[in-house]
Amino acid sequence: MPGKAGNAGTPAVGEALIEVPGGITAVKGVKASGVACGIKAGRLDMALILAERPSPVAGVFTRNRVRAAPVLHCQRLLAGRRLSAIVANSGNANACTGKAGLADAEQMGRWAAEAVRRPPREIFVCSTGVIGQRLPLEKIRRGIRQAALSVSSEGGRNAALAIMTTDRRPKERAVALTVDGTRVTVGGIAKGAGMICPDMATTLCFLATDAAVEASHLQGALREAVDQSFNRITVDGDTSTNDTLLCFATGQAGARKLTPRGAAWGRFQEALNRVARELAHLVVRDGEGATKFVEIRVKGARAPAAAQTVARAVANSLLVKTMLYGQDCNWGRVFAAAGRSGVEVVPEKMALLVSGVPVARAGLGLGPLAEQQANERLREAEVVLELDLGMGRFESATWTCDLSEEYVKENAAYRS
Amino acid sequence: MPGKAGNAGTPAVGEALIEVPGGITAVKGVKASGVACGIKAGRLDMALILAERPSPVAGVFTRNRVRAAPVLHCQRLLAGRRLSAIVANSGNANACTGKAGLADAEQMGRWAAEAVRRPPREIFVCSTGVIGQRLPLEKIRRGIRQAALSVSSEGGRNAALAIMTTDRRPKERAVALTVDGTRVTVGGIAKGAGMICPDMATTLCFLATDAAVEASHLQGALREAVDQSFNRITVDGDTSTNDTLLCFATGQAGARKLTPRGAAWGRFQEALNRVARELAHLVVRDGEGATKFVEIRVKGARAPAAAQTVARAVANSLLVKTMLYGQDCNWGRVFAAAGRSGVEVVPEKMALLVSGVPVARAGLGLGPLAEQQANERLREAEVVLELDLGMGRFESATWTCDLSEEYVKENAAYRS
Repeated sequence: MPGKAGNAGTPAVGEALIEVPGGITAVKGVKASGVACGIKAGRLDMALILAERPSPVAGVFTRNRVRAAPVLHCQRLLAGRRLSAIVANSGNANACTGKAGLADAEQMGRWAAEAVRRPPREIFVCSTGVIGQRLPLEKIRRGIRQAALSVSSEGGRNAALAIMTTDRRPKERAVALTVDGTRVTVGGIAKGAGMICPDMATTLCFLATDAAVEASHLQGALREAVDQSFNRITVDGDTSTNDTLLCFATGQAGARKLTPRGAAWGRFQEALNRVARELAHLVVRDGEGATKFVEIRVKGARAPAAAQTVARAVANSLLVKTMLYGQDCNWGRVFAAAGRSGVEVVPEKMALLVSGVPVARAGLGLGPLAEQQANERLREAEVVLELDLGMGRFESATWTCDLSEEYVKENAAYRS
Repeated sequence: MPGKAGNAGTPAVGEALIEVPGGITAVKGVKASGVACGIKAGRLDMALILAERPSPVAGVFTRNRVRAAPVLHCQRLLAGRRLSAIVANSGNANACTGKAGLADAEQMGRWAAEAVRRPPREIFVCSTGVIGQRLPLEKIRRGIRQAALSVSSEGGRNAALAIMTTDRRPKERAVALTVDGTRVTVGGIAKGAGMICPDMATTLCFLATDAAVEASHLQGALREAVDQSFNRITVDGDTSTNDTLLCFATGQAGARKLTPRGAAWGRFQEALNRVARELAHLVVRDGEGATKFVEIRVKGARAPAAAQTVARAVANSLLVKTMLYGQDCNWGRVFAAAGRSGVEVVPEKMALLVSGVPVARAGLGLGPLAEQQANERLREAEVVLELDLGMGRFESATWTCDLSEEYVKENAAYRS
């Protein structure tokens, strides 16, 4: 599944995409900055991403019914379909803060609007961090002013650093493709390490492209990219209140406008998919306490949705996650998780491979030697669990990490 | 919710029930034993529970689609509605073992039938432990013979010990009630500490009563008792392949036959509910790595099912579980879990109490002082999270434990 284009009828053109440095500021017409405003002592905590000109924008948001104030604010702004800037702080999620929190988010937007001299309706506002506390407004105000003064075409990395919470590493990616001889770039940054679960737009992720794309087409492309990336990862099964994914198109590359009917659309979609997928994978790799990156591949399902449901049940099973951490091929836990997924499965038809090593077939274990070989593969930092349901021809993948004592330690101590 | 009779129109008669010692062998007409047959080095691992006369039986089983061989075998036997004995081993689940495993379960039943001189169709067979390995038949055969020689009216505790896997403590309970001047007893044993999740009959649990009850009525009573007990607990969200709950009625108390229309039925149901609930609570208290017993009480829901769905989402949230372990009142995690439960909730209507201390109201935190007081209550071994959705008049409760590093350690190392 990884690397496969989702757009039907489009050939995989991975070879036509070139990875480039610079993250979101690799995109023409995008400037960014990350500064320290004092919410998190001694660390960058305020990011600003500026579109040199107002740009068409698309967005997807958490499906959690408890939505943070900035999410509610962004959802309203999205109706206007134009973005001039994104302002985002870390350390405080401005979630469960009621009407006062919504007013704070709007105030954040107005301050940023003044600082970058654009209308407030084009300023998207994001927050991430602790739930249930009011924003420290004076710090926010100073931080926004400072961030506006610092934006540059090299600021993508600082912006990626400034949106981190429990992340160990900043997450950025950019790829370039050629459209009729003109180079077009898709770049982005993301954050997230916990409260990560599929079936939503997870975490914060900001994407930009210098392709010229209308907002409605961009929304469709973003939806597809998210379905194949952020909606297929899980760290701990918990859906955040603040998940926000925004994508804007500056059009500054100078290439002609892209539409879904045009010849270059498939490659553009692939570029967007790839950046989104790689950023999503970086979130999993940075999963709280994770020691392994794990792909759960489910084959032989009667429908794609069934394959994805089984994959998620396996990926969210604490017993599978601790088995991966313990590096002991207790494959029955994978079967048990598939069995409780709600999808009709027949144990006698199921087979499991661990990073290519068959350990169970026709519902039965293949013995201690097979498990020994599998245990060796489980010691590696990347693991693929391939479960064949033997019921049909559909498959799907999801990505997750193992569960270590460190996850518990981190989340028991977080905030205190 | 705890202590409340579920049978509509029946007054709560908790005061009429007396807790008695002896577990399942407190019930007249029940003998039991637990012996060591060598599956688990140096520990009891084979239990036998004998009904002196063939008795009406009821049962509920895992809803996991991957069902262990003994579960499939018991489900077939249940059609006969009569039980003479339960034979159960720990250390090996006989799950994911295919046709050979099913033959092994039947063989176990035949050996036990010979040993206790009853027909094989009345011998219920259970296994719990590692998934995916064949039973060590020779050990099983010897164990069954030895167990049959050791059954006694004092053997309940040994049987409770012999079905333990990662359990730290044996789990048994018995209560007595009076029916028309005759003393009737309901007793039982259970096991389980991990792979525990609601929406099924969790773990192994064997109940008996010396009341005279027909199998069909017993099945209805058992279903209600399970819905209010084992179906409302969760340790780790993972549903086992082997969950089996059996209840049989020896009729040896000498009281007249109980039927749902009779005057004493409500009290009998309450006795059954209580034994099931207390055994289920013992499973949670013994949850792998657990340091706290936690009741999640959800009020103000539009329907009972909505209340239960929210309660389960909160109970299964890793972030809530680690918050409980960390003893830090990060209440936003409870709101976030409710928000992702799928039930329509409105943050502005939600309120939360931690063991009686209000920490959030109308969707807003009540400040650091309230949280400080809540943190003190979180240091206690028993915690009640009471979430009011403010949407309706229905409520429900579920029981869970916190998540510590110990859970991860235990499950990463289990089997190896």
